[in-house]
Amino acid sequence: MKQIIISLFVIVGLAGFQAQADVHPNLMLTANSAKTLSANLGRVPLLDSTFERALEEIAPYLESQVDVPLPKDAGGGYTHERHKKNGQAIQQAGFLYQITGDKKYLLLVQDLLMRYTELYPTLGKHPEHKHQSPGKLFWQILNDAVWLVYVIQGYDAVLLDLSETDRQTIETQLLRPYVDYLSVESSKTFNKIHNHGTWAAAAVGMTGLTLNDQHMLDIALKGSNKDGSTGFLKQMDMLFSPDGYYTEGPYYQRYAMMPFLVFARALDNKQPDYKIFAYRDQVLLKAVYAAINLSYNNLFFPLNDAIKDKGLDTIEMVYGVDIAYALTGDAGLLSVAKDQGQVLLSGDGLEVARAIAAGKTEEFHFTSQVLRDGAEGESGGVVVLREKNSALVLKAASQGMGHGHFDRLAWLYYDNDAEVVSDYGAVRFLNVVTKRGGVYLPENKTWGKHTVAHNTLVVDGASQFDGKVKLANKTSSKLLAFSPKPGLQIVSAREDHAYPGVALQRTMIMASPQALQAPLILDLFDVKAKDEHQYDLPLHYQGHLTYLNAKPKVALNKLLPLGGANGYQHLWNKGEMKVAGGSAQVTWLQGNRFYSSTNYMPRGASVILAELGANDPEFNLRRESSFIVRYPKMAKAQFFSVLESHGEYNGSREFTLQPKSKVAGVEIERIQQYRALKVKFVNGGQYTLVLADDMQAGKQHTLRVGEKSIRWQGPASSFEEVVDDKAQ
Amino acid sequence: MKQIIISLFVIVGLAGFQAQADVHPNLMLTANSAKTLSANLGRVPLLDSTFERALEEIAPYLESQVDVPLPKDAGGGYTHERHKKNGQAIQQAGFLYQITGDKKYLLLVQDLLMRYTELYPTLGKHPEHKHQSPGKLFWQILNDAVWLVYVIQGYDAVLLDLSETDRQTIETQLLRPYVDYLSVESSKTFNKIHNHGTWAAAAVGMTGLTLNDQHMLDIALKGSNKDGSTGFLKQMDMLFSPDGYYTEGPYYQRYAMMPFLVFARALDNKQPDYKIFAYRDQVLLKAVYAAINLSYNNLFFPLNDAIKDKGLDTIEMVYGVDIAYALTGDAGLLSVAKDQGQVLLSGDGLEVARAIAAGKTEEFHFTSQVLRDGAEGESGGVVVLREKNSALVLKAASQGMGHGHFDRLAWLYYDNDAEVVSDYGAVRFLNVVTKRGGVYLPENKTWGKHTVAHNTLVVDGASQFDGKVKLANKTSSKLLAFSPKPGLQIVSAREDHAYPGVALQRTMIMASPQALQAPLILDLFDVKAKDEHQYDLPLHYQGHLTYLNAKPKVALNKLLPLGGANGYQHLWNKGEMKVAGGSAQVTWLQGNRFYSSTNYMPRGASVILAELGANDPEFNLRRESSFIVRYPKMAKAQFFSVLESHGEYNGSREFTLQPKSKVAGVEIERIQQYRALKVKFVNGGQYTLVLADDMQAGKQHTLRVGEKSIRWQGPASSFEEVVDDKAQ
Repeated sequence: MKQIIISLFVIVGLAGFQAQADVHPNLMLTANSAKTLSANLGRVPLLDSTFERALEEIAPYLESQVDVPLPKDAGGGYTHERHKKNGQAIQQAGFLYQITGDKKYLLLVQDLLMRYTELYPTLGKHPEHKHQSPGKLFWQILNDAVWLVYVIQGYDAVLLDLSETDRQTIETQLLRPYVDYLSVESSKTFNKIHNHGTWAAAAVGMTGLTLNDQHMLDIALKGSNKDGSTGFLKQMDMLFSPDGYYTEGPYYQRYAMMPFLVFARALDNKQPDYKIFAYRDQVLLKAVYAAINLSYNNLFFPLNDAIKDKGLDTIEMVYGVDIAYALTGDAGLLSVAKDQGQVLLSGDGLEVARAIAAGKTEEFHFTSQVLRDGAEGESGGVVVLREKNSALVLKAASQGMGHGHFDRLAWLYYDNDAEVVSDYGAVRFLNVVTKRGGVYLPENKTWGKHTVAHNTLVVDGASQFDGKVKLANKTSSKLLAFSPKPGLQIVSAREDHAYPGVALQRTMIMASPQALQAPLILDLFDVKAKDEHQYDLPLHYQGHLTYLNAKPKVALNKLLPLGGANGYQHLWNKGEMKVAGGSAQVTWLQGNRFYSSTNYMPRGASVILAELGANDPEFNLRRESSFIVRYPKMAKAQFFSVLESHGEYNGSREFTLQPKSKVAGVEIERIQQYRALKVKFVNGGQYTLVLADDMQAGKQHTLRVGEKSIRWQGPASSFEEVVDDKAQ
Repeated sequence: MKQIIISLFVIVGLAGFQAQADVHPNLMLTANSAKTLSANLGRVPLLDSTFERALEEIAPYLESQVDVPLPKDAGGGYTHERHKKNGQAIQQAGFLYQITGDKKYLLLVQDLLMRYTELYPTLGKHPEHKHQSPGKLFWQILNDAVWLVYVIQGYDAVLLDLSETDRQTIETQLLRPYVDYLSVESSKTFNKIHNHGTWAAAAVGMTGLTLNDQHMLDIALKGSNKDGSTGFLKQMDMLFSPDGYYTEGPYYQRYAMMPFLVFARALDNKQPDYKIFAYRDQVLLKAVYAAINLSYNNLFFPLNDAIKDKGLDTIEMVYGVDIAYALTGDAGLLSVAKDQGQVLLSGDGLEVARAIAAGKTEEFHFTSQVLRDGAEGESGGVVVLREKNSALVLKAASQGMGHGHFDRLAWLYYDNDAEVVSDYGAVRFLNVVTKRGGVYLPENKTWGKHTVAHNTLVVDGASQFDGKVKLANKTSSKLLAFSPKPGLQIVSAREDHAYPGVALQRTMIMASPQALQAPLILDLFDVKAKDEHQYDLPLHYQGHLTYLNAKPKVALNKLLPLGGANGYQHLWNKGEMKVAGGSAQVTWLQGNRFYSSTNYMPRGASVILAELGANDPEFNLRRESSFIVRYPKMAKAQFFSVLESHGEYNGSREFTLQPKSKVAGVEIERIQQYRALKVKFVNGGQYTLVLADDMQAGKQHTLRVGEKSIRWQGPASSFEEVVDDKAQ
C-alpha cells in the first residue's frame, strides 16, 4: 500500500495542462494518427475492412433525418437504443471526418451535437428511473456515462472546425452540465470503487482532457475530494489484483476493462507524463493479458454469471489487444487481433493492422499460470494449467461479488478446441426479449449459482455458504501449491469456510504418462470433518455417454428430480451405478474424441447419472448431462479420479480409434506423510504419483516405495511401469 | 424396357479385347496418366497433398515386416482389418510405383501378392462364416470382392515388371481361383441385383480386363449365364432410378456408387467402345449428381438408416466427383472437390487438381428438383426445394428396402448452414465398439425407424404399415405436383397405403412474402378417413425453445413416456399447450437464428412438447426435442402450419434482432374447389396462398377472393397485403 501512495504522489507532481498545446483530436484518435490512417487506406487489409465497416454503419445516418427523441424507454426500448446509437454515431462520424476530411461527417456530428444541446437542458431524471442511480438520457446513470465517453471523442474530432459560438453552446449547454450531473448530482456513483464509477470517471476525465479543464481531470483521477480515496486511480488499485485479475471473473473482466482502457489511452495521448500505463506495475496491461489467458479457443472461461458466447473477438478485447500491442510490440497479440478481424480506427489499430500485413504475426503464447484474486492478491486465485491443446482451470478465488457462483474449488477442462468438463455459465438469453427481456432468469438463482451446478463438492445437498453472498464475500479459497513443471503440473488449493466444520482441499495434476498420448488429469479431493455428511462430487460433461464399466440401474419410464432444493430440483435422476470395489468408469464421446473419467470408489459409493431440465416451467435450461460420485455417509473422505482423453471417432472416413480408456482402474495408498495415487493401465502398466502432505515448493523428500527409493523436491513425483502395448 | 434391351445389344456388338493393345496399368490409373501425374508433382497443390498423404499412409509398410495372417476374426477384428489394409496397400503401392518409378513400391506389391499367392490356395471358408455368404479372407464374400477390386489395380500397376513366372503364379494360384470363388462358388451373390453383386461384378470384371479374359468380363457385365438377366448392366438398370436415385437413400447411395464408378472407369479406360458412361442415358453420372443434390452444406440428407456425419467429403464421392468432372468438365463440381480436400491418384484426379489450381472453380449449382424413385421412376421420389440458403426435402418415395424408415411424406428443412427440421437418422455409433460393436442398436428399430421419429403424420399412435417392411416394400407414395417457380415453389404428394382406410396428402410451399426476409414454408397436410382417429403431426427440431404463444402445462417434477410402443415409449411428455382458437406458435433458437412454427389449431387440438430419452437403458439416444400437434379424434382433417426463419442472436456483439415471429396466426378458408391459406402478420399485413384441389400443372384457374379476381395457371397463386412496418 505504501508503494501505491508514493506513485500517486509522483503522478500528481509531474503532470498538468500548462505543458500541452491545444491539439485535437487527442483522445483515442489523435490528429497525427488520423493523418497516418488516411495515408494508409487501401494499403492495409485489416484497416480497410474496418474502415469500410465504419462507412457502412454510419451510412444510414447520412440518408435520413436524425432522430433525437425525448427519453422514454427503459433498456432495450426504442429511445434507449436510439440514444445509444446516436452517441456511437457522434464518435464514429467524428473519426471518419478526421480520416476522410469529408465535410458531410462534420455536419452530421455538428447536427447531432446541436440537437442534444437543445434537448439536454430540458431534461429531468429519466421517467423510468426505478433504478437507484437514474440518468437523464437513460434509465440508469451508467448508460449516461458510457454515452459521454463516445460523444466526447466525436466532439474532440470536430471542435477545431466548429464556430466559437457553437463550441461555447455545446460546452456550456451540454458538456459541462452533463459532467455536473455525472460527478456532482450523481456523486455517489461517481465515487464508487466499481465499474459504474470507472465509466463516470472516464467520461468526466476525457471531457476534462478535451476542454483542458484540470478540475474535471483531477476529480476523475482522484475522486470528488481530489484526495485519491476514490476515482480512477483508486479504482485501478482496488478493482484489479496485482496480476490484473478482475474479481467478478472473465466475463465481467472484459466489460470492466473498457472504460479503463479508453480513458487511459486518452490520458496517455494527451498527458503522457502521467505514465498511466506504467501505473501500479502496468496493471492495465496485465489485465489485458489476464483476460486473454482466461480463455480457450477464443472463448472466455464461463466462471460466475457468464454468457458463453463471449470471447476474444468482443469489442472490449479489440481495444485491449490493439492498445497492448501498441505499448508492447508483442507479436503474439497479433494472432489474437487477426482472429478478431477488426482493429480500432486509431493509431493503435493502424499499428496492429500494419504489423499483421507485414507478416509479423506470431501465435499467442499461452502458459500455465496463477491469476491471483484480491486487490493485494490475497484472495486465492484462478489457476490455469496448459499442455499441448489442453487447459485445466481451477477456481480457488473469492466469491466475485453479486455475480459470483458458489463454486469454490470447481474445475473446468478444455481439450480438442472444446469445453469438456463444463460450467453452465449464466441462465440467461442475452437480449432475447421472449426470455423475460433478456435478463438473468429465475433459474440462474435456482440452478446456475448453486454448487451442484459446478464441478466441485456438495456437502449434504446444500450449496457453499448456504447460498448466501454476504457470507461468501467475507472469505476466499487459498492456494497451497502451484508447480507448472511440464509433464507434471500441480495445483492445490483449500477452502475452509464454504461448509462449517468441513475442510476441503483439492489437488489437481496434469501429468503425461508415457502410456498415453494426451495429458492425464489426476484429481484428488480431500474432505475433513468431524461429523458424517453426504458428499457429492459432480462432473458436468458435454457429449454422449458411450461406456459405463458396470450395469447401471436406469430410470426407464419415470423420471424424478434428484432433490428438492439447491439446484438438485433441476436434475433428473437418470440412474445409478454401483461398482463392487474397484473403480467406476464413465466414457463419453464429444466431437471426435472420447473422454473417460475413472473414479476411486470406497465402500458405499455410487455414481448417479443426471440430466438437467426438471422444474423448468419456461424451458430455460439447456439439456446437459452430468454424473455425481456420491459418498452417502462419511466424515473424512478422499475422492480420486483421473480423466483421459483418447481415441478418435471419424464418421466421414469410417474409422474409430481407441473408444475405450487405457485406464483400468485407480487406487490410493498412504505411505507415511505421502500418498501414492496409482493409475493402472489395461495393458498391465502403471503410473504412480507420489504426493507429499507437505506441499512446500522447496521441500526435499525421500521415500521408499516397494523396492524403489525416490528423491524429489516439491509437492509430488511420479514414476511409471511401461508395458509395450502389443494390441496397438 | 425395350430401349434398355436395344442398348445392351449395341454394347455387346461394339466391344471386344481383340482391338486393344496390352497396355498396363489401365484400370483407374492408366500408364499415360501415371506419367502425367509424375510430371505434375510439385506444381498442383491438391495433387501434391494427396500424393504426400499416400506416401505417409504406405510408409509403415516399408518400415516393418508385412503381416499376412491366417483369416480368423470377424468384421472389426485384427485379421479382418489387416487384410483390408493389405489390399488397399497393394493398390496404393502399385500406384506409387507407377508415379515415382521407385522400385521399393514394386517390391512391396510383389511381396504382398506372393504372400497371398501362398496363402489363398490353403484357405477354406472363413472360420467366422455364420453369414449366409461367406468369404475366404473375410467373414462375408462382400469383403472378399472389395479386396480384389483394390488388389487387381495394384497388380495391373506392376505386372509388366514382374517375371513371367511370377505372373503365372499370381494369376493361376491367386487371381483365377479368387474369381472362381466369387463368381462360381458364390454365384448366388454374384448374380444378385444388389450392391453386393455389384462389388463382385466389379472385382471379376476388372480382373478380366487386366488378364484380357473376355469370359470374366462377359459374366461380370451380363451375369453367369451371359444373358444380361443379371450382372453389372442389369444392376445399372435396376438399382438406380432414371434420375440416378438409389432406393435406399443418400447414405447408401454413396456407398453403392463406389463399385459402379470404379468398374465403369476401368472399363471406359480399357474398352471405351462400351461407352459405359453413356449407358442408360448416363445413369452413373446422374447418380453422382443425385448424390450431390441430396446434400446440404456438404452433409447428406439423413433419410432411412443414415450416419449423419457422412457427406460429400467421403471417399466414394471423391471417386464420383473426379470421374464426373473428367467426363463433363462441369466447373461446379470443382467447388465440391475443393471442399473434399483430396483427389484420386489418377488421370481424373489430376484433371480436377489442375483445374482448381488454374482457378476454374465455380459454385455447384444446386436447384430444386425431383429425384424419382424406382427402376422406371414409377415409385414416387424425393423432392428438394431450394431458395437462397434454404432447402426443403420431402420424402415421397418407396420404402427403401430393409434400411428404410416408415416416414412417407416426411419433410426436412435446412437453413443457415444447419439442419433445422431434422431426421434422427440411424441409432448407431459407427465403429464404436463400446456401443455393441458399432452395429445398429436396438433403438434403431424401437425408435429410429418408427413414424413418430419423423416429421410426418402418425395415425392412432401406430407406425406406417404397422412397421412391416414387406408390406411397405409393395407400394410407394405418389407425386402429385412439382412446381419450382422461384418465389412460389410447390410440391404435393399422396400416400394411400401407409394406414388402411386413411388417405394422406401433403402439400408444401416455399414462398417469399415481401413482409419477410427469408423464405416462408407453408405446410398443408390433408387426411381423409371414414372413421375417427387420433392424428399426431410431430416436428423434430434442433435448438432451444424460446417462446410459446400460450402457457403450457409443464411436467415439472415427474416425467412419463408419451406412450408404450411404436417409438412413443422413447419420448418423455414434457408438457402440453392448448390454444383457445387461433394458432399455436412455437419458437426456438438454433445457432444464431430463430425459427417459428405457427400452427392452425382446430377445436380440441393441442401441442405436446416432447423430449427423446425414455426407455433408453444404454443411453443410446441423443437428447432431442420435438413437438407434436395432436388432433385427438377426427375423421377428415387438415393440418396447416408455416415455418418462418427470422432474426439474429449475436452473443459476442451483444445484440438480438427479431426474436419473435412476424407471423401472428394462420387460417384456412375453403372457396369452392380452392383453399385460401392465410398467413396473418403481426403488423396487420397478410399473405394469402390460393391452392386448387386440382393440381394439374397446365390447368387455368379464375377465382374471386373478396374483391379481387385472380387468374393463374397451375396448382396455386398468391397475393399479399403489404403493410409498411414502422416498428422496424
